[in-house]
Amino acid sequence: MSHPYRIDPASAKAAEAAAAIARDTLAKHAADVDANKRFPRESVDAIAKAGLFGLCVPAAQGGMGLGMRAFAAVTEELAGACGSTAMIYVMHVSAAQAIASGQSLAGRDELLRAVAGGRHLTTLAFSERGSRSAFWAPVSRMAAENGSYTVRAEKSWVTSAAHADSYVSSAQQPGAASPLESTIYLVRKGAAGVRVSGAFDGLGLRGNDSSPVTLADVAVPKGDLISALGEGANTMLQVVLPWFSIGTAAMSNGLCRAAVATTTAHLGGATFEHTGSKLRDLPNLRARLAEMFCRTEQARALLGHALDHIESGSAAAPLYVLQTRLASLQAASDVTDLAMKTCGGAAFSKHLGLERVFRDARAGWVMAPTVDHLLDFSGKALTGLPLFS
Amino acid sequence: MSHPYRIDPASAKAAEAAAAIARDTLAKHAADVDANKRFPRESVDAIAKAGLFGLCVPAAQGGMGLGMRAFAAVTEELAGACGSTAMIYVMHVSAAQAIASGQSLAGRDELLRAVAGGRHLTTLAFSERGSRSAFWAPVSRMAAENGSYTVRAEKSWVTSAAHADSYVSSAQQPGAASPLESTIYLVRKGAAGVRVSGAFDGLGLRGNDSSPVTLADVAVPKGDLISALGEGANTMLQVVLPWFSIGTAAMSNGLCRAAVATTTAHLGGATFEHTGSKLRDLPNLRARLAEMFCRTEQARALLGHALDHIESGSAAAPLYVLQTRLASLQAASDVTDLAMKTCGGAAFSKHLGLERVFRDARAGWVMAPTVDHLLDFSGKALTGLPLFS
Amino acid sequence: MSHPYRIDPASAKAAEAAAAIARDTLAKHAADVDANKRFPRESVDAIAKAGLFGLCVPAAQGGMGLGMRAFAAVTEELAGACGSTAMIYVMHVSAAQAIASGQSLAGRDELLRAVAGGRHLTTLAFSERGSRSAFWAPVSRMAAENGSYTVRAEKSWVTSAAHADSYVSSAQQPGAASPLESTIYLVRKGAAGVRVSGAFDGLGLRGNDSSPVTLADVAVPKGDLISALGEGANTMLQVVLPWFSIGTAAMSNGLCRAAVATTTAHLGGATFEHTGSKLRDLPNLRARLAEMFCRTEQARALLGHALDHIESGSAAAPLYVLQTRLASLQAASDVTDLAMKTCGGAAFSKHLGLERVFRDARAGWVMAPTVDHLLDFSGKALTGLPLFS
Amino acid sequence: MSHPYRIDPASAKAAEAAAAIARDTLAKHAADVDANKRFPRESVDAIAKAGLFGLCVPAAQGGMGLGMRAFAAVTEELAGACGSTAMIYVMHVSAAQAIASGQSLAGRDELLRAVAGGRHLTTLAFSERGSRSAFWAPVSRMAAENGSYTVRAEKSWVTSAAHADSYVSSAQQPGAASPLESTIYLVRKGAAGVRVSGAFDGLGLRGNDSSPVTLADVAVPKGDLISALGEGANTMLQVVLPWFSIGTAAMSNGLCRAAVATTTAHLGGATFEHTGSKLRDLPNLRARLAEMFCRTEQARALLGHALDHIESGSAAAPLYVLQTRLASLQAASDVTDLAMKTCGGAAFSKHLGLERVFRDARAGWVMAPTVDHLLDFSGKALTGLPLFS
Repeated sequence: MSHPYRIDPASAKAAEAAAAIARDTLAKHAADVDANKRFPRESVDAIAKAGLFGLCVPAAQGGMGLGMRAFAAVTEELAGACGSTAMIYVMHVSAAQAIASGQSLAGRDELLRAVAGGRHLTTLAFSERGSRSAFWAPVSRMAAENGSYTVRAEKSWVTSAAHADSYVSSAQQPGAASPLESTIYLVRKGAAGVRVSGAFDGLGLRGNDSSPVTLADVAVPKGDLISALGEGANTMLQVVLPWFSIGTAAMSNGLCRAAVATTTAHLGGATFEHTGSKLRDLPNLRARLAEMFCRTEQARALLGHALDHIESGSAAAPLYVLQTRLASLQAASDVTDLAMKTCGGAAFSKHLGLERVFRDARAGWVMAPTVDHLLDFSGKALTGLPLFS
Repeated sequence: MSHPYRIDPASAKAAEAAAAIARDTLAKHAADVDANKRFPRESVDAIAKAGLFGLCVPAAQGGMGLGMRAFAAVTEELAGACGSTAMIYVMHVSAAQAIASGQSLAGRDELLRAVAGGRHLTTLAFSERGSRSAFWAPVSRMAAENGSYTVRAEKSWVTSAAHADSYVSSAQQPGAASPLESTIYLVRKGAAGVRVSGAFDGLGLRGNDSSPVTLADVAVPKGDLISALGEGANTMLQVVLPWFSIGTAAMSNGLCRAAVATTTAHLGGATFEHTGSKLRDLPNLRARLAEMFCRTEQARALLGHALDHIESGSAAAPLYVLQTRLASLQAASDVTDLAMKTCGGAAFSKHLGLERVFRDARAGWVMAPTVDHLLDFSGKALTGLPLFS
Repeated sequence: MSHPYRIDPASAKAAEAAAAIARDTLAKHAADVDANKRFPRESVDAIAKAGLFGLCVPAAQGGMGLGMRAFAAVTEELAGACGSTAMIYVMHVSAAQAIASGQSLAGRDELLRAVAGGRHLTTLAFSERGSRSAFWAPVSRMAAENGSYTVRAEKSWVTSAAHADSYVSSAQQPGAASPLESTIYLVRKGAAGVRVSGAFDGLGLRGNDSSPVTLADVAVPKGDLISALGEGANTMLQVVLPWFSIGTAAMSNGLCRAAVATTTAHLGGATFEHTGSKLRDLPNLRARLAEMFCRTEQARALLGHALDHIESGSAAAPLYVLQTRLASLQAASDVTDLAMKTCGGAAFSKHLGLERVFRDARAGWVMAPTVDHLLDFSGKALTGLPLFS
Repeated sequence: MSHPYRIDPASAKAAEAAAAIARDTLAKHAADVDANKRFPRESVDAIAKAGLFGLCVPAAQGGMGLGMRAFAAVTEELAGACGSTAMIYVMHVSAAQAIASGQSLAGRDELLRAVAGGRHLTTLAFSERGSRSAFWAPVSRMAAENGSYTVRAEKSWVTSAAHADSYVSSAQQPGAASPLESTIYLVRKGAAGVRVSGAFDGLGLRGNDSSPVTLADVAVPKGDLISALGEGANTMLQVVLPWFSIGTAAMSNGLCRAAVATTTAHLGGATFEHTGSKLRDLPNLRARLAEMFCRTEQARALLGHALDHIESGSAAAPLYVLQTRLASLQAASDVTDLAMKTCGGAAFSKHLGLERVFRDARAGWVMAPTVDHLLDFSGKALTGLPLFS
C-alpha cells in the first residue's frame, strides 16, 4: 500500500506507534470521554509517554525531528479513534511550532525540551468573543508598562483550557492602529489574572476541554513575546496557519477513515433475518460506501499534494494549505453524513460509535479559518485580490 | 398569510392551541428532556389537557373530529419546540387511527373516549430486530390456542415504550406462509409477558422513550385483534402509513421551521465587535438562509398538495404520501445541516438550541419507511413495478 | 388528480388547449427549432390562433380574462414540449401585463385587443450590457426634447428580438440621479433607430430569438410611456417581476415534467439483451427517478402556494415570488441533470430529446433575477435588510 | 509548482509538447470541430507529428517508451483545449496498449512502429447495442470456420469510427457458455463486412467520430487475435481498463482545469459599468471558484495517488483505478456545472468556450464503466463481494 502522504520510514514508524496507542488507549476511552465531557487524560498521557509530544521538535531539543508529513500521518491515526484527543494534539503541535519560531522567547529551548519529554502540553488561544472567528484580527489589547506588558482579553474557545501548561496567545500591540497589528506571546500556567471560565458543552469534540479563558491584566514579560511587537500576523499566517491547517485536515481525514471502516464492517456484518441477505447486498448502500471512500481518498491525496507544495517552497503552497483544510472539512462533514444514512438505526444509537464521529466531524466548521473563510480566501487568492481587506 | 396546509378555522384554532403549548411548555423543557434522556411528561400532559390527544377522534367519541390537515398543522407546531414530544404525538395519533379502524376490537369506543379525554396514550410497535426496518414483514409469530392467541416478538424501537397505555403491534398470523400475512392487535399496559428492555440512548429524539420491547408469549384475546387475521398489511398500508407519513413529514417541517427561525434571529442579532457589522451582512450566510427557507417551504407546500390528493381520493395519493415523507425527511436533514453551517460556533454549543434540532432531524432517516425505502417504493410506483417483491 | 396550481375550470380548459397545441405542434418542431436556431413560427402561430396570446388580457379587451394560475398552467404545458416557445410566451404575457398597467399609454386598449386577437407579439427589453444582469438599474438614458423623449440603449438579451411587434423597454429618466430612477416605455416595431444586432447562438433555448438590440436615439413620444417618469421601478417590481417569475417558474416546472416523463418511459422501455431485464430493475436508477419526481413536485407545489400568497395579497407575497422562481430554477437544473445521468447514452444522443431539455433548463440561471440574485434578495428580505443597497 | 502526477523530466517534456500543440492547434479548431461535428483532423495530425501517438510505445518499436504518468499529463493538456481530440487520443493509446499486449498478434511490432511513427490511429470497439454499457459481457459472437473465425457484431459507440486504421474489438468466443468468455481481436481498416453506420450527433465530444459500427461476418484470421480465445476479459480488465480509466480521468481533469481557468479569467475581467466593480468582487462567485478549484485539485491528486498504487503493484491498485475515474468524472460534471453558474450569460453563449467544455464533460457518464458501474464495482470491492455476479 502506498501512503498518500508519502512518509519516510521514520515517520511511518511514528504513525504505527500512534496507531497502536489509538487502538489500545484512545479507542477504549473515547465513548466515556464524549459522554462525560471529560479531558482524555489516559490518551494524552499515552501520547506523551510515546514521545509524540515532541514529534516535530528538533532532535537538538530532544524531539523526534520529524516534519509535517509525520504530523499528518500521526494525527490521522489518532483522530480515527478519538477526535477530542486528536484536536488537543493538533493544538499542541501547532502551538509548539509557534514556540519554536520565537526568536526572542526566553528559555525557549528548555521549553521545547519539556515538550519533547512529554512534560509540557501547550495550546493556542487566538479566537475572541469580539472578533468572532476572525482570529487574525484580535480585539484584545496589550498595554506597555515599565518595559513590560499587560494583556486584557476574552478568549472564546481555548482547547485544553484547564489542562494546558501554556497558551500561545494573541493581542493587538500597544497603541495598535488596526487589529492586524498583533503580537503573539506565551501565557504560562498559573499566571495571575488567567481564568478559565466555564466548561465546554457542545455537539462534538466534547473532551477537548475547549473553554473561554479570560486574561485579566495578565503580565507579559518581554521574554514571553513570541513574535516581535505588531508582527503577530507573520507568526499566525506563516507558522501557525500551515501547521494548524495540515493538522486539522489530517484529523478530518482520520474521522473519514473511521466512518468508512465502521460502515464497511456494518454492511458486511448486519443481516436480514427474513431473507438471510446482508446490508452489502443492497446496491444503494454499497454505492454510498464507494462514494464515502472516494471523498476520503481525494481529501487524503490532496493533503499529500499540499505537502509537496509546502516542502518544495512552491509559491502556491499557501493556497494549497487553505485548500487541503477546505477539502478535508467538507469531506468529514459529507462522509460522516453518508455513513449515518448508510448505517441507519445502528448508527443512530451509540453502539457503532459512528454518531460520535459524525458529531466530532462538525467541529471543523466552527474553528477559524472556517469553511466560509477558506472559500473566501482561496477565491481571493485565485482571482488576485488581497486576502484581508 | 396563507397556510400551506389550507386548514379550516377549527383546525387553525387547534394549531394555535398547539403553538401556545409549544411556546409555554415544550420549549421550556426540551433542553432538559434531551440532556437527561427523559420522557417529556409536562409536555405530554399539557397536550392531553388541551384535548389534543383526541384531535382526530370522532366527535361521537368525544374527540375534536378534525382531519389530517389539523394533524399536520398541530404536529408542526409541536415539533418546532420539542422533537421528542412531536414524535410521541405522531405515534399516538397514528396508533389511535389504527384503533379507530378496528372493526372487531372489543371496547373500541370506550378506548377512543379515553384517548379523547387525554387519559390514554397509545403508540405503534411494528419494527423488529429480525426484519430490521422492513416493518411490513414481521418475523414475529402468533400462535392459536383454544380460540385465543399468543405472541412472541422482539420489537426493536417502540416510542413511549415505558409510558404508553397500549401498543398497536404486528405479527405473522398463525401458520403464515409469508411475513406479509400479518395481523395487527392491541397490547394493553401491564399485560403479562410484556417487557421493556433497556432505555434509549441515541443521537436525537432523546426523550421519545424509544426502547426495545419483548413480547414473551403475551396472550392476545380475540377481542384485541385490530385487523382480521392475515390482513394486517391493509391496516399498516392504508391506515397507519398515511397518518404516520403525514405526521412525520409535518414533524420534519416543524424542525425545519425552527432551524430557519433560529438562524434568522442569529444572523440579525450577532455582531462583529471590530467592524460593527452583523452576520446578516455576509452575503454567503444570508444566501444559505434563503436556501433553507426555500427547502422548507417546498416541503411544506408538497405536504399541502399531498393532503389534496388524499382528500380527493386521487389514485396518486399513495405516491404522494411516500413523496411528502421523503421530501420532508430530506429537507430536515439538509436544512438543519445548513443552519449549523450558517450559525457556526454558536450552533455548535448548546445555547441556540440548534444542535438539538439538528440531531432530532436525523431520526427520520432511521424509522421505516426510511429515505431509501421511500425512494425505492416511489421509483417502483413511477415505473409500474409492484411495491413488494 | 389534484392540480398543484388549483386552477378553476376555465383555466383548466385553457391548459388543456395548451397541452393539445404542445403535443400537436410544439413537439413536432422543437428539435428542428433547436438545431437550426430558428424562431418557432408554427408554434407561436398556433398559440396565437388558439387565443392564448390574450390569456390574461381582460375580457373587455377581447381576452380570456384569466389570471396567474391559468398563466402558470398553460406555460408549464408549453414548456414540456418546446422551451424556446415557452420563453417567448412568458416574455409576451409579462410584457402584455406591463402594457395593461400603463395608465397613460396612448392606444393601450387597441393594443391589448391586438394582443388578444393574436395579431401582436410583445416582449421585454430590460437587460443591458453595462448593468449586466442588474435589470433594475439600467445604464441607458432618456433625453427630453421638446416635450418628447429620445433613448440610447444597448439592450443585451431581448427574446423575440427580430419577431416581436413591440418591446417593453427601460431607461433612466432624463437627468436621473441614480439608475433606480428609471422609466418604462414602449418601442414599436420599425421605429427609427432600432437595430437587432446579431443572432443568438447559445447552449439552450436556441429558438427564442434572444439578441442584442441597439436603440440609437429612438424617439419615444409621451404617449408611449408606460410608467410615469422615474417610476419605472414600480412597474418592474410590482407588475413585471411577479408575472415573469411565476411564468419562468412554471416554464422550469414544465421542463422538469418533461424530464420525468422521458426518464420514466426510458426506464420502462429499454432492456438488456443478455439478461432480459429492464433499466427500471436497477434500484439506483429508479431511486434517481423518485428523486427527480420529488424535486419536481415540490417546486410545483411551492408555485401553487406562492399563487395563494399573491391572490390573498399577503405581505409575504413578494418573498414567495422570489422563492418560487428560485425553487423552480434549481429544480430544473438538478432534475434534468439527474435525467441525463439516469438515461445515459440514450440521453447523450439526440433521440430522446432529453439533452435539449437539459440545455434549455440552464437558461434560467442566466436571466435576471438569477439564482444568485434570488438568494440574495430572499436573504435580505428574511433578515430585514433593504433589497437594493 | 509540484505536478500532481509526479512526472519525470522526460514526461514533463512530453506534457509541454502537448500543451504547445493544445494551445497552437487544438484550441484554434475546437469550436469549429464542435459546431460541425467534424473529426479534428488538424489536431490529430499535429499530435501524430509530434510523436505522441507513440508516447507509451516501447523505444524498441520507435516509441517514447514513457508510462502512465506521461499519458495522464499529456491527455490532461490536450483535453483542456479540445475534448474530442483528447477522447480520440485516450482510445488510441488504450487500444495501442491492448495491441502491445497481444502475444500472438501477427505483425505486432510493425504495427507498433506504425503507431509510433504517427501513421496508424487505432481505437476500441467494445460496447454493443445488446449489452448496453456492460462492455465486459459482449452479446456478439465469433464463429470458427476452417481454422479461421468470423464475427457478427453491432458495436454501438466506436470513437474515431470512420477515421481509425484499426479497431481493437471484442466478441464471445465460439461456443461461449457465457458472455464473459470473450475474445479480443484486431479489425483492420477496409476489412470486408465492416460498416460505419451513421454519424454521431450528441450533446458533447461532437468531434470524436463516435458511431455505430456493424461487423457483418467479418473474417478474423488467427493472427489477428489479441487475447487467447475466451480470455478477452483479462485483456479488458488488466490492460484496457487501467489505461482507459487513467486516460479518461486525466481527460476529465483537463476539462476541469479549463473550466477553472476560464472562470478565473472571466471573474477578473468582467466589470459592472454602473459601479465599476468586477465579478470577482462578489463573494459568492469567488467562493464558487474556490470550490471548483478544490474539486479539481482533489481529483488530480487522487489520480497521482492511483498512479502510485499501480506502479507499486499494490493489491489496492484495481480499486484506485475505479476510484480515480469515478472522482474525475464526478468532478468534471460538478466543476463545469459550477463554472456555468458562475459565469452566467457569458457562459451560456458561445464566446467563452465554456458551454462546450460543460457539454464535453458529460460524456464520461455515458461511457462504460459509467459512474454507476464504478460505484457498484467499488462498493463490491470494499465489502468483499465478487465484481461480476
